[in-house]
Amino acid sequence: MKIGIPKENQDNRVAMVPATMKKIASDKVTFLVEKSAGSAASLSDAEFAETATITDRSTIFQTSDIIVTVNPLSDNELSAIKKGTLLISMFAPYADETIVGKLKDNGLQAVSMDMIPRSSLAQAMDILSSMAAVAGYKAVLMAASHLPRYFPMMITAAGSIRPAKVLVLGAGVAGLQAIATARRLGAMVEAFDVRKAAKEEVESLGAKFVEVAGAADDTSAGGYAVEQSEDFIKKQRAEVQNRASKADVIITTAQVRGRKAPILLPTETVDKMKAGSVVVDLASSTGGNCELSKDNEIVVYNGVKIIGNSALASDMPQDASTLFSNNILNFLKLIIKDGEMVLDMEHEIIKSALITG
Amino acid sequence: MKIGIPKENQDNRVAMVPATMKKIASDKVTFLVEKSAGSAASLSDAEFAETATITDRSTIFQTSDIIVTVNPLSDNELSAIKKGTLLISMFAPYADETIVGKLKDNGLQAVSMDMIPRSSLAQAMDILSSMAAVAGYKAVLMAASHLPRYFPMMITAAGSIRPAKVLVLGAGVAGLQAIATARRLGAMVEAFDVRKAAKEEVESLGAKFVEVAGAADDTSAGGYAVEQSEDFIKKQRAEVQNRASKADVIITTAQVRGRKAPILLPTETVDKMKAGSVVVDLASSTGGNCELSKDNEIVVYNGVKIIGNSALASDMPQDASTLFSNNILNFLKLIIKDGEMVLDMEHEIIKSALITG
Repeated sequence: MKIGIPKENQDNRVAMVPATMKKIASDKVTFLVEKSAGSAASLSDAEFAETATITDRSTIFQTSDIIVTVNPLSDNELSAIKKGTLLISMFAPYADETIVGKLKDNGLQAVSMDMIPRSSLAQAMDILSSMAAVAGYKAVLMAASHLPRYFPMMITAAGSIRPAKVLVLGAGVAGLQAIATARRLGAMVEAFDVRKAAKEEVESLGAKFVEVAGAADDTSAGGYAVEQSEDFIKKQRAEVQNRASKADVIITTAQVRGRKAPILLPTETVDKMKAGSVVVDLASSTGGNCELSKDNEIVVYNGVKIIGNSALASDMPQDASTLFSNNILNFLKLIIKDGEMVLDMEHEIIKSALITG
Repeated sequence: MKIGIPKENQDNRVAMVPATMKKIASDKVTFLVEKSAGSAASLSDAEFAETATITDRSTIFQTSDIIVTVNPLSDNELSAIKKGTLLISMFAPYADETIVGKLKDNGLQAVSMDMIPRSSLAQAMDILSSMAAVAGYKAVLMAASHLPRYFPMMITAAGSIRPAKVLVLGAGVAGLQAIATARRLGAMVEAFDVRKAAKEEVESLGAKFVEVAGAADDTSAGGYAVEQSEDFIKKQRAEVQNRASKADVIITTAQVRGRKAPILLPTETVDKMKAGSVVVDLASSTGGNCELSKDNEIVVYNGVKIIGNSALASDMPQDASTLFSNNILNFLKLIIKDGEMVLDMEHEIIKSALITG
């Protein structure tokens, strides 16, 4: 069985790293890695060559049994791949209705890692969580780099500096990691989430949980946020606006899977913010939580910097690749038995993830 | 008495901030602030106008009794200032031999805040320390932003990530703040300094002090580093090289006042470093501690990013301005009595700082 790892088209990550490959490589399971696939993640061909054969892209497309990528390959590339190959990537079929048809038209099988259910069984394969954690950490570093103030409290001979106030909107994996990182750096942190279960997690990280009464029941939503009533959204906006006017930094992470991100910071809220404060909008690729954000841009509005970036995992490529690779390894262990691929369609994880099945 | 605050020429800071001005403003002590002097530090003219008169640059030059700036004004500007005015800035006469003559030729008096002795009495006016602390903090944020890895240890369902290894060269104020910030972010930190007194401070921050035997005696150097023997420098280089080869991040802060910065990371040491690791050289404006650094540039050498930046205080302009301003306030209190300027040349601080005296 040959597993192919092409170089990503527009991402600094690589889908598998040498340390992980070593854990599954054998006489029967071999790796083909495209030349300089890991260079943007500071992983050299020499490191890969200890376990894999370094080769070119078309050899990988024509001879692999499984091809793993972080991002889906382009339409043109799909047609260049040997029929029957299993592609493993983050296809996000809930956001791209055409992808399954394209894969099938090219005679390809495909596992979408983002379709693996968020159960405790599947935690070790939860790429969305691994990457969201990286994004939450990087979002705080980015905010701290742009803020004209210190994050920690400073008591010096030249006087005292109060700690920065950070407001985190959405306390999923990205939000929790943002809270933890901002707390590490000494900021005072408040967090808001419509999921009531988030309260305990937020408080365990030393942050204050902002509560708004009347949120919709979300117990059966599998950890995702659900849509809320208009009355709730109005109360929520008023509460967020009140906190935002005092914040130095706001990190927004609220996404509703397969839909446009909810607007949590309308322009009228940004109008109340202090000059010099910073918004990092991790939901910018799906429309943004801030009405003014633009994906992959920094907008300056009345002195407030609004940074739209949903691709921060690519900005910390080495550890992001390692975690991604570990998630992939855990999935491969599920489908490779004695060097043979076995797609057990009775298995809950495989059934959910095999989008061409 | 009129105190004038011009807008800085090439710096985001402003020499005094509204909160500090309020503490000394009176019927007898008034402030003139140049339009948009604080804008790059997110301080509006409206905030200044509560205490000061907002005016233009030439009015400040022609009518102030004291003019305070972060950086010295240009030669052309010096000749446009009313004779007899006292300028307060960081003139660094130890690095610019011509400055005192220029000031005197223009009939100006000048206080150089960087000439205030580093005594406990003068701590509250120690601008070099306030700004060095900002630089140390920002250096770590910059390193963490460029590193392709996490700083903290992460124990996740997708496996564990080891903490980043940070090596800090020079444990003065900038180095200590870099150590503290890297520790906050969860890194393992080692630090090196030729001053033996640094050991206890480094260890109290949870970092490991790297010792090299045979350093020169520095007890009478007033807290500055002294020059070392060739034998010591050789041993030091070997020890630094050994640590550098294992480090993810190196922050260098070693400066010898009035001289070129010592080379602590020669090219042969960088050759031993890992691809993806990051050097932040805070001494780049005086030649750099890394042989490969270029001031205000990012050099990539064998996958190692070498960031030369000695002006990081300007990148966190609001708090840097607040601290600078507090230092200035403490000095002004020393020379303004009942609304009149009294330059007591018997006072140790005034005597040291008044470079035209």
